[in-house]
Amino acid sequence: MRPNSTRPGSAELYRVFEHIDANKDQFISRLLDYLRHPSISAHNVGIGEVAELLVNTLKRVGFEAQTFPTSGHPMVMGRWERAPGAPTVLLYGHYDVQPPDPLEAWISPPFEPAIRDGRIYARGAGDNKGQHFAQILAVESYLAVHGRLPCNVLILLEGEEEHGSPNIADFVRTHRDLLKADLVVTADGPLHESGRPIITYGVRGIVSFELRARTANHDVHSGNFGGVVPNAIWTLVHLLGTMKNADGQITIDGFSDDVVAPSGVECSTAARLPLDPEDIKRSLGLTRLDSPVDRPLADRLMFHPTLTINGFHGGYGGPGPKTIVPHEAVVKCDARLVERQAPDDVLDKIEAHVKRHAPDVQFIRLEGMLPSKTPLDSRYSELLQRAVRTAHGVEPFIYPSLGGSLPDYVFTKILGTHSFVVPYANADEANHAPNENIKIECFLNGIRTGAALFDELGQWGDES
Amino acid sequence: MRPNSTRPGSAELYRVFEHIDANKDQFISRLLDYLRHPSISAHNVGIGEVAELLVNTLKRVGFEAQTFPTSGHPMVMGRWERAPGAPTVLLYGHYDVQPPDPLEAWISPPFEPAIRDGRIYARGAGDNKGQHFAQILAVESYLAVHGRLPCNVLILLEGEEEHGSPNIADFVRTHRDLLKADLVVTADGPLHESGRPIITYGVRGIVSFELRARTANHDVHSGNFGGVVPNAIWTLVHLLGTMKNADGQITIDGFSDDVVAPSGVECSTAARLPLDPEDIKRSLGLTRLDSPVDRPLADRLMFHPTLTINGFHGGYGGPGPKTIVPHEAVVKCDARLVERQAPDDVLDKIEAHVKRHAPDVQFIRLEGMLPSKTPLDSRYSELLQRAVRTAHGVEPFIYPSLGGSLPDYVFTKILGTHSFVVPYANADEANHAPNENIKIECFLNGIRTGAALFDELGQWGDES
Repeated sequence: MRPNSTRPGSAELYRVFEHIDANKDQFISRLLDYLRHPSISAHNVGIGEVAELLVNTLKRVGFEAQTFPTSGHPMVMGRWERAPGAPTVLLYGHYDVQPPDPLEAWISPPFEPAIRDGRIYARGAGDNKGQHFAQILAVESYLAVHGRLPCNVLILLEGEEEHGSPNIADFVRTHRDLLKADLVVTADGPLHESGRPIITYGVRGIVSFELRARTANHDVHSGNFGGVVPNAIWTLVHLLGTMKNADGQITIDGFSDDVVAPSGVECSTAARLPLDPEDIKRSLGLTRLDSPVDRPLADRLMFHPTLTINGFHGGYGGPGPKTIVPHEAVVKCDARLVERQAPDDVLDKIEAHVKRHAPDVQFIRLEGMLPSKTPLDSRYSELLQRAVRTAHGVEPFIYPSLGGSLPDYVFTKILGTHSFVVPYANADEANHAPNENIKIECFLNGIRTGAALFDELGQWGDES
Repeated sequence: MRPNSTRPGSAELYRVFEHIDANKDQFISRLLDYLRHPSISAHNVGIGEVAELLVNTLKRVGFEAQTFPTSGHPMVMGRWERAPGAPTVLLYGHYDVQPPDPLEAWISPPFEPAIRDGRIYARGAGDNKGQHFAQILAVESYLAVHGRLPCNVLILLEGEEEHGSPNIADFVRTHRDLLKADLVVTADGPLHESGRPIITYGVRGIVSFELRARTANHDVHSGNFGGVVPNAIWTLVHLLGTMKNADGQITIDGFSDDVVAPSGVECSTAARLPLDPEDIKRSLGLTRLDSPVDRPLADRLMFHPTLTINGFHGGYGGPGPKTIVPHEAVVKCDARLVERQAPDDVLDKIEAHVKRHAPDVQFIRLEGMLPSKTPLDSRYSELLQRAVRTAHGVEPFIYPSLGGSLPDYVFTKILGTHSFVVPYANADEANHAPNENIKIECFLNGIRTGAALFDELGQWGDES
């Protein structure tokens, strides 16, 4: 049924690559159009509109597409299943974006995409619109050239990933049959700093929470009441001091009990990665890496949990001094989790710790997500590596885990499917920060990678 | 020259009291007018206007009055010196006010004075406009009834007390001759919670500073960089943890080296004060007093330095979670000082401590003020106590020191003059906080106290 092909990449695939090259200007322009639509899940802005826009886009491309309501924001799903006998890949992405503040730090406004120096700047450019839009264009390009895909493709786009994916687990449990696939591939996160592609086999989990201290019914004068009225900020400072020490060790009672040490293969795979602390220090203007100082870079990102303060706000922040004892303060935190930490259990432990060390402080659970791992010797490893190599022209790096969190556990732990993250964005995409961007070259390589993956899956289907 | 008088209070004084009673409505209305004029030194709002307004008010009352420029905001000074041979009292106050934020917490707007339940609500009502305006009205009332004062009165009103009084020391050094007085009396701060008047013989000093951490050139994703990029908030949390422990002990190296323990008389005087922790806990909604737990209330306010975090701001503070590693954060602090801590030396020690424990953190000196003490056996003790008793009808409490800071050291340490603080505002004046207020009864008692003080000084002058 399919023309003879030699690896890397079939002849069929190279005709798709030519189509991508010939259409890159309109692809860029269509991505800019997409990025003009804000879809901020944390603020419930633009979600419904963008979900609808995606369904229409998927239909125009050739998918059967619809939204699925959840208790939160709708899931968008597209299906192309006209390759009987061929394997099925489920592509996951998310159409919601982070809040854009601080707005004043953006060179061009976050929802008015601008091209500068070969990059597209906009909120969502890298995380994740530019990446899943590349997947959609890979399908479109393959269909435009060949009128069909060599494998079956499901696409699932979530509307609240930046808000902790609170409903995807329920959705996956309920729609298990609709999501039946041989493997899951997610384009999210950044390439290696060198520009080399990567394939990731896992993600860290996450929990988010708030700590709120309230020590009096209003702020009081630091002279008339200093030393008398407890200070909400000091209360949180001292509590936080019991949760992680200056050496970087998380000291919440029981927090690390369930952490499973990485396997020998995971360690050696991670050790082969050319992660250079000096590159990161240079690009981010760091004078040092975070404590503990003696930890290899790969281990920091993959094998250790974190406890991050995302924000601390209390008392006076205006110009000049203001001599008050602040009566309330709020800290927002997240913790990245590794196998086999479980969010509910970790939150229970943090809550118990807070109760023990600062019983007056209010603990507010925000969200949680399990970590996920696919074995490094998965049967899809080789074909994925070939697809990425074909699209990029270089060998991908293999990451046992990403530092970030994606709801991959719903695929690995609920569906029992192998799941891979194949990022398309540049390492300095500035996701979750002002001036988020994607390099145009990365976006186009993303489209090529999607197409190459379909090509490989078609051939693998023939062989299997 | 003066009619025969019996203590407490001369017949002459009681006629002044009658005048005050007869004119209270117009006094209140004129205070409201005064409070309508913002004069926020930290924001440089309304200062010049209010200084001019005060000069005109003082002239109308009968003072020679003028402003004196400083490197900052002008001093306002009034002189009534037509009582040769009688003693001279210098009344000190400040016409600047604290910033009014958070505005949304005010029941009525801070610069639209409102009367509710016998209180005048406005920024500056208690701190300090209501109090020095009472002094001015005491002079006006005495002059209205008798055409003269029984003593000489100088009034000095500063425009940057809420901004740390950065120029008063230079002003006092330069204008030593203009400020020659037998004693200094300041109406500022609150009465005892019971409403009983107090006389204070000292104040704590103060230093203010900022700590600024900047760990990267922008915020980064807590997954992609958590555990790798140092967190500006954790940096400050751990630094602050080295500065004061959870037991309330200030642990900055050398901070308390120069602290002089209070004398036996100071201790016994303080111990006689009916300071009830339960009253404070009830009125401010506290569940506990600040650490250390075993310290008597009077000692907390008078004999121990403090280290207060006035504000902590960094990272995300909006709704929902935001998974970032914040790259910058700012902490504002003040420390109240006791005899014989010196601001420059204390700031040097804090700076050295910061350099040692967190060399990347920027230390910014904001301001400093020396503590001050007048001996409890001052020759003016008795007359002051009589004046206050006469005006209030009850015995005043004697405080060896205030918890707050006033630039009293310029009088005690530069001029060598005994200096007393005789507060007029209610204990729950909410100074430096939303809904600042002064009880009308306190304001009127303040006018009476001023008049009684002049009366006593006139008689003391006769005897001396």
